[in-house]
Amino acid sequence: MADILHRVGVKGAAPEDVYDALTTVDGLAAWWTEKTSGDGGLGGRLEFRFPPVGGFDMEVVETRPAERVTWRVVDGPEEWIGTTIDWRLRRDGDYTIILFEHQGWKEPVEFMNHCSTKWATYLLSLKALVETGAGAPAPHDLPISDWH
Amino acid sequence: MADILHRVGVKGAAPEDVYDALTTVDGLAAWWTEKTSGDGGLGGRLEFRFPPVGGFDMEVVETRPAERVTWRVVDGPEEWIGTTIDWRLRRDGDYTIILFEHQGWKEPVEFMNHCSTKWATYLLSLKALVETGAGAPAPHDLPISDWH
Repeated sequence: MADILHRVGVKGAAPEDVYDALTTVDGLAAWWTEKTSGDGGLGGRLEFRFPPVGGFDMEVVETRPAERVTWRVVDGPEEWIGTTIDWRLRRDGDYTIILFEHQGWKEPVEFMNHCSTKWATYLLSLKALVETGAGAPAPHDLPISDWH
Repeated sequence: MADILHRVGVKGAAPEDVYDALTTVDGLAAWWTEKTSGDGGLGGRLEFRFPPVGGFDMEVVETRPAERVTWRVVDGPEEWIGTTIDWRLRRDGDYTIILFEHQGWKEPVEFMNHCSTKWATYLLSLKALVETGAGAPAPHDLPISDWH
């Protein structure tokens, strides 16, 4: 098993602000992909789409307000199905620290390298959204390679 | 053991161009940190500094022109010592694909989350350097959190 890890700090923001951006469709659509639908509450299902290449369906398996959100991937690329995406939030001085883990990849395939870098860019989009009001969700996301 | 993985594609560039940015002091200083010194050739030692917080010393343990560069960390933060940083390059259409792995972390500590995100930003700096001639090496790097 292999995991993707990331950490960013959102300046001048409360954990509640980041939590909202992780649990509401409007929030998610403003930093990850504009094509977000579903229900970000506990037990809900979220659909993230990235036209024309597909997307991911997540089941929300844990929510602790302002502290933690966990999704399980239930549909999408084969390598993603059954993996979990875990967000932990905490306040540290003037920052909200986001600890991100995409856990349970069966093998460290090249697609995992790509997703790791791409997650970093989306975390920076989330940080920008909460700090400035403007993120860079798909299709306005930063291209990093031939795989977009 | 745990690894940090990344993948970026450098558009309109040859693997030789990326290889130069990984094996020459001028190249490294233009995307990672301006305070780079030493020798990037096989068997050489490279010193990367990030004032005021310290840095890393690497031994160059593998070089295959336009294909691969591997460093072993011989000095720096305790979590980094003994880890390896591996770069694989290949041409794919109009891109040079960079597969990056920072291998052999003893434990997935929070500092590893930070370094993973930070590596992504430096890989994007390397990509920008080769594509446009201008990277964002420290101290001009993108701050991602309270840990810089």
